[in-house]
Amino acid sequence: MNRNEITEQIVVARLTRGLTWQELADAIGQPVVWTTSALLGQHPIPPELGKLLAEMLGLDLSVVPVLAAPPMRGGLPTAVPTDPTIYRFYEALQVYGGAIKELIHEQFGDGIMSAINFSVDLQKKPHPSGDRVVVTFDGKYLAYDWVSAQGE
Amino acid sequence: MNRNEITEQIVVARLTRGLTWQELADAIGQPVVWTTSALLGQHPIPPELGKLLAEMLGLDLSVVPVLAAPPMRGGLPTAVPTDPTIYRFYEALQVYGGAIKELIHEQFGDGIMSAINFSVDLQKKPHPSGDRVVVTFDGKYLAYDWVSAQGE
Amino acid sequence: MNRNEITEQIVVARLTRGLTWQELADAIGQPVVWTTSALLGQHPIPPELGKLLAEMLGLDLSVVPVLAAPPMRGGLPTAVPTDPTIYRFYEALQVYGGAIKELIHEQFGDGIMSAINFSVDLQKKPHPSGDRVVVTFDGKYLAYDWVSAQGE
Amino acid sequence: MNRNEITEQIVVARLTRGLTWQELADAIGQPVVWTTSALLGQHPIPPELGKLLAEMLGLDLSVVPVLAAPPMRGGLPTAVPTDPTIYRFYEALQVYGGAIKELIHEQFGDGIMSAINFSVDLQKKPHPSGDRVVVTFDGKYLAYDWVSAQGE
Amino acid sequence: MNRNEITEQIVVARLTRGLTWQELADAIGQPVVWTTSALLGQHPIPPELGKLLAEMLGLDLSVVPVLAAPPMRGGLPTAVPTDPTIYRFYEALQVYGGAIKELIHEQFGDGIMSAINFSVDLQKKPHPSGDRVVVTFDGKYLAYDWVSAQGE
Amino acid sequence: MNRNEITEQIVVARLTRGLTWQELADAIGQPVVWTTSALLGQHPIPPELGKLLAEMLGLDLSVVPVLAAPPMRGGLPTAVPTDPTIYRFYEALQVYGGAIKELIHEQFGDGIMSAINFSVDLQKKPHPSGDRVVVTFDGKYLAYDWVSAQGE
Amino acid sequence: MNRNEITEQIVVARLTRGLTWQELADAIGQPVVWTTSALLGQHPIPPELGKLLAEMLGLDLSVVPVLAAPPMRGGLPTAVPTDPTIYRFYEALQVYGGAIKELIHEQFGDGIMSAINFSVDLQKKPHPSGDRVVVTFDGKYLAYDWVSAQGE
Amino acid sequence: MNRNEITEQIVVARLTRGLTWQELADAIGQPVVWTTSALLGQHPIPPELGKLLAEMLGLDLSVVPVLAAPPMRGGLPTAVPTDPTIYRFYEALQVYGGAIKELIHEQFGDGIMSAINFSVDLQKKPHPSGDRVVVTFDGKYLAYDWVSAQGE
Amino acid sequence: MNRNEITEQIVVARLTRGLTWQELADAIGQPVVWTTSALLGQHPIPPELGKLLAEMLGLDLSVVPVLAAPPMRGGLPTAVPTDPTIYRFYEALQVYGGAIKELIHEQFGDGIMSAINFSVDLQKKPHPSGDRVVVTFDGKYLAYDWVSAQGE
Amino acid sequence: MNRNEITEQIVVARLTRGLTWQELADAIGQPVVWTTSALLGQHPIPPELGKLLAEMLGLDLSVVPVLAAPPMRGGLPTAVPTDPTIYRFYEALQVYGGAIKELIHEQFGDGIMSAINFSVDLQKKPHPSGDRVVVTFDGKYLAYDWVSAQGE
Repeated sequence: MNRNEITEQIVVARLTRGLTWQELADAIGQPVVWTTSALLGQHPIPPELGKLLAEMLGLDLSVVPVLAAPPMRGGLPTAVPTDPTIYRFYEALQVYGGAIKELIHEQFGDGIMSAINFSVDLQKKPHPSGDRVVVTFDGKYLAYDWVSAQGE
Repeated sequence: MNRNEITEQIVVARLTRGLTWQELADAIGQPVVWTTSALLGQHPIPPELGKLLAEMLGLDLSVVPVLAAPPMRGGLPTAVPTDPTIYRFYEALQVYGGAIKELIHEQFGDGIMSAINFSVDLQKKPHPSGDRVVVTFDGKYLAYDWVSAQGE
Repeated sequence: MNRNEITEQIVVARLTRGLTWQELADAIGQPVVWTTSALLGQHPIPPELGKLLAEMLGLDLSVVPVLAAPPMRGGLPTAVPTDPTIYRFYEALQVYGGAIKELIHEQFGDGIMSAINFSVDLQKKPHPSGDRVVVTFDGKYLAYDWVSAQGE
Repeated sequence: MNRNEITEQIVVARLTRGLTWQELADAIGQPVVWTTSALLGQHPIPPELGKLLAEMLGLDLSVVPVLAAPPMRGGLPTAVPTDPTIYRFYEALQVYGGAIKELIHEQFGDGIMSAINFSVDLQKKPHPSGDRVVVTFDGKYLAYDWVSAQGE
Repeated sequence: MNRNEITEQIVVARLTRGLTWQELADAIGQPVVWTTSALLGQHPIPPELGKLLAEMLGLDLSVVPVLAAPPMRGGLPTAVPTDPTIYRFYEALQVYGGAIKELIHEQFGDGIMSAINFSVDLQKKPHPSGDRVVVTFDGKYLAYDWVSAQGE
Repeated sequence: MNRNEITEQIVVARLTRGLTWQELADAIGQPVVWTTSALLGQHPIPPELGKLLAEMLGLDLSVVPVLAAPPMRGGLPTAVPTDPTIYRFYEALQVYGGAIKELIHEQFGDGIMSAINFSVDLQKKPHPSGDRVVVTFDGKYLAYDWVSAQGE
Repeated sequence: MNRNEITEQIVVARLTRGLTWQELADAIGQPVVWTTSALLGQHPIPPELGKLLAEMLGLDLSVVPVLAAPPMRGGLPTAVPTDPTIYRFYEALQVYGGAIKELIHEQFGDGIMSAINFSVDLQKKPHPSGDRVVVTFDGKYLAYDWVSAQGE
Repeated sequence: MNRNEITEQIVVARLTRGLTWQELADAIGQPVVWTTSALLGQHPIPPELGKLLAEMLGLDLSVVPVLAAPPMRGGLPTAVPTDPTIYRFYEALQVYGGAIKELIHEQFGDGIMSAINFSVDLQKKPHPSGDRVVVTFDGKYLAYDWVSAQGE
Repeated sequence: MNRNEITEQIVVARLTRGLTWQELADAIGQPVVWTTSALLGQHPIPPELGKLLAEMLGLDLSVVPVLAAPPMRGGLPTAVPTDPTIYRFYEALQVYGGAIKELIHEQFGDGIMSAINFSVDLQKKPHPSGDRVVVTFDGKYLAYDWVSAQGE
Repeated sequence: MNRNEITEQIVVARLTRGLTWQELADAIGQPVVWTTSALLGQHPIPPELGKLLAEMLGLDLSVVPVLAAPPMRGGLPTAVPTDPTIYRFYEALQVYGGAIKELIHEQFGDGIMSAINFSVDLQKKPHPSGDRVVVTFDGKYLAYDWVSAQGE
């Protein structure tokens, strides 16, 4: 069973067993966004955690080494996402991506926000006109830097 | 001169005149992400602010009513952005988009984060292993709700 | 069995059992457009309704929790639909989309019609030159509004 | 000057002159959605109306015969629209397109809603939880019918 | 078994049983282009005809209600067809599509040839320099007409 | 001035001068579909005819040799046409392309309809339920034939 | 078993049985390029030859009538081939395609090289700086010719 | 003037001056396919030859150093060519590309035909059933060979 | 079992058996990048090595002749890779591809780096600011050379 | 003049003035790959260097501040490059990208090679069978690390 097939099994097993993502994250003591993303096939899951999760979800333990390998990442089925909940973030890039780029350059210099030394946080915040979804992308600033290995 | 041509002029004029996005935002008393995005052609700019900006940037005042109209939005030249600074956000959607969707549903219900009743904040935060780019997407939660106009 | 596989089963089971979408909608007391869209995999179906529908369609009850989860939405197999009945709506956007945008802005301001606080109605209306298909898209107006969560 | 260039001129001229789409529509006694769509390059404009509009917008009268010719239709710059106001309608097709197809077939038979014998209406409707955008697509039902010209 | 799977079965069964499309069309008393297209999954087949065809092709009778439902149309596996026999028609649109559009407008007015009230005929015609394939697309002219349902 | 620029000039000049495609075709004694297609940039126009047309349309005679060269053919601005009048023919291929292929093979053998030894005819045919657009694609049948040059 | 499935079986069976394409071609007395292409699903294979090949490859004889039908042609899995051996030919079109077109027009007139009345030859030719792959595309010249069926 | 603009000038100048590609090739003593391809922007043209060609075509001599630089190659305006004369070669790859790959492997081993150490020849060959276009792609065989630079 | 299916088995078997790519490469005495790429379906594997690998991975020996055949190469599931580890190399081409081309031309002449007579090396190099990934693409320079087979 | 227009001027000016990339790099004391990439629009050029380069290339000094701003990066005109010299690197990703990913994970862990803290080197290395192009991609290893800003 390859990683995609395992992911499909996880998605259905979680629903059938009535487990929340938070419960799964708590069980392994990891942040919930990381745990959810990993279970959806986007991160390797260390064997001891993979074993715990496989048991909770009723999966065969043969999945543990496959879960532990760095996966082929990229979870959107199409280049432009069609699901409205995901699309709004793509739309935000269409509208604010250029501005974010300019301001990273203005405040930090010529570089990028790392998506590797990185975390995502999702909060529910109350507001008089209705609860708000607050998603924070938090990545290390990496300056363009022309470096080469020593001894090369 | 249409909106795209005005945007091209703004981009060059700002550099030539040595103005920062922050200075432009301060001059009109608006948040800097909003101001930058608006000047890059993604939001209408109210005439009194448009006049101020046109003067600072040395643009003809005939641009003011064009800046004031809601633009055709969408600032990425290709569906998948090629610029590394912008791409990292697209990549974050590829890796974390599915998890964000799942957790919005788990914490809020079946709905989305609005990208309209929405703001973006960008902060530079110090960290022992290097400064961090912290970008917050903050949108009102909108539940899927089957409503129709009254008297329809 | 994942949601896509369940949808495939529903499509065939409905035809084999000779049930109309209207009968299915009536059985669960929901609007027929919503019900059809939900059964085609575009909305979560509350468990008690899911159970009823599964029984009418002869599906295994293990599908109920999967039906109850918010699905990955987006039902067109290609970005530009090839089916003529669906294509005409895409064509209407090609011809009238720009005008609709302009008039939303002229009559409401800078904002959008929500597709979340939203309903669709489909009516058959008689007309001397032939019956008409009247499809109403009815969504809450959302003004572009730069709001952030409090305490942020 | 070809039709696209004329459309670009119209868009800027309308803003510069401070004319609303409604005023332009009233001046020629045509529905406002039709008028806006036509001025955006999607319908031919009869010469006598084209002359009136050209004068209101300060365009050279040489545009009149070009405006009067059936244009190459299709107003979206990309197959999937990026502008949020237009995108919501595309999203509605992704979520409800399949259901609309099924219900046209259930209520009318095997056929389509014409996008040619067709009109679009846009209304602002008050609602306790906020004004609503109500867009009606109203097209003649056309049954699939295997007909051939006589004498063929 | 969904419609696509039935179509695949039909394609192989016809060859294995050595039936021509003409024989299948004759058996149900329908035009051969219509019959072929329907058997390839592009039209609903009324139950009594579906039953006849299923028997001739040795298919299970459970396919009959699925064949009787209006299918999701669109039979090209790629947007630009790769099969040479089909491609030539696409090429003809690339070369003559603009001219056909202009002449429909010149001879009929602003409108289209219906692809719904429509038939296709294919003839083998002798010619001194070799037999000719003559394919006739015959559709009702539909004028652009801004009509709305009464009582709306 | 390259061929595309000449085509743009022709399109506008024809409208400004009030000439029909039929009149242009009659002036050079060629079929109207061929003439229109050629003037839209899809066929070379022999110098003596090009000179006549350039004079009728008020174009500089320097265009004549460019019109006389075989052009880079392909007149659709997108792979899937967006204009409704042209789209209907593409849709016909989606619905009937597979059937046409099967019947060419059944009636002629393994081969194609040539799009080179080919003509298109467009007729307006009266019909009790409304005039019909009848477009005939008429191409020489070419059998797949494994031939090589002699002496090779 | 449809044609694609048969092709997959052929590919594996040939390797497992250790047969060369040349041996298969010799067995049926056909040119090797034709035979290979046909076995890869691009040409119909006459029943008597299909039977021979099925036997050599150990396939069930039920494949014979499917092999004998004109297939849906087009063997590249993506529009731009990724396999280097095939890509070089696509690259040659990118670099020399325009020149080939111009020279066909210069030497023959306005027309094409047929890909139907056509053969491909592949030779290994010695050369001091290394063996050469010499692939010859040999097709009948077809002049653009506006012909219609008689009696039409 | 960049290379693309020079190419556009060459295309028009050649027609206006009535020069054949062969004459241009003869003037510089180069093969005609190479010359045509180079003049269409696909090869650098040595300065002494570029000067000759510029004079024959009446171009400004400032183009000579631009013509002499290796160009950004790739002359097809779309990934799948729309021009019928060029398309037939793309079609040949769709139908015979897989076979050509297999036979290069069978006759030479695991490798490719070089498109760099390469030439193209185009011949007009008489044949009883009509002249033939014979295009030869002749490239050095390159075996997959895992080599690295010495001293690395 | 075709090559793709074998590759899927290899990927899972390697993880389940806890073998490193290096161990597999050592076992067959080949470079590790070549071995990994070959096991991922991008190179033929000589039978004696394929047998060894199949045994280590617990695969059926019937895969050996399939592994030994030159595969259909191209291992990215989308034209633009989504996996971040692979994407960075694509990004490097977006940013440095043009410069690499210019400098190959400046230092070598008009030609390319072969990707066939080619090797890839991957090293981990220490550096004060963190270990570095050093990937070397090493290919034979091939000059554009217009050569044809002798006796042609 | 925007950055793209400046880049176009640089490309032509360098050829006209007969300057090598190496001379331009030497003049500003920067690595030649960096300099070439920057002059092709992929890096900001500090004002003092920009001034020097503008003078060498004969550009107006108003370009200096535009050259100094971080550009919108991404230099390939199409997602899949068509130029053969660049394409070979894309092909190398198709063939070796998966292996490189696996080996980065095996030797370093779950992470990537940075394309920001990064350099490219291009060397001409002699070899008995012909000179070799050796391109080294050298980037800092970045481990996937779930870090968030302090005080967040």
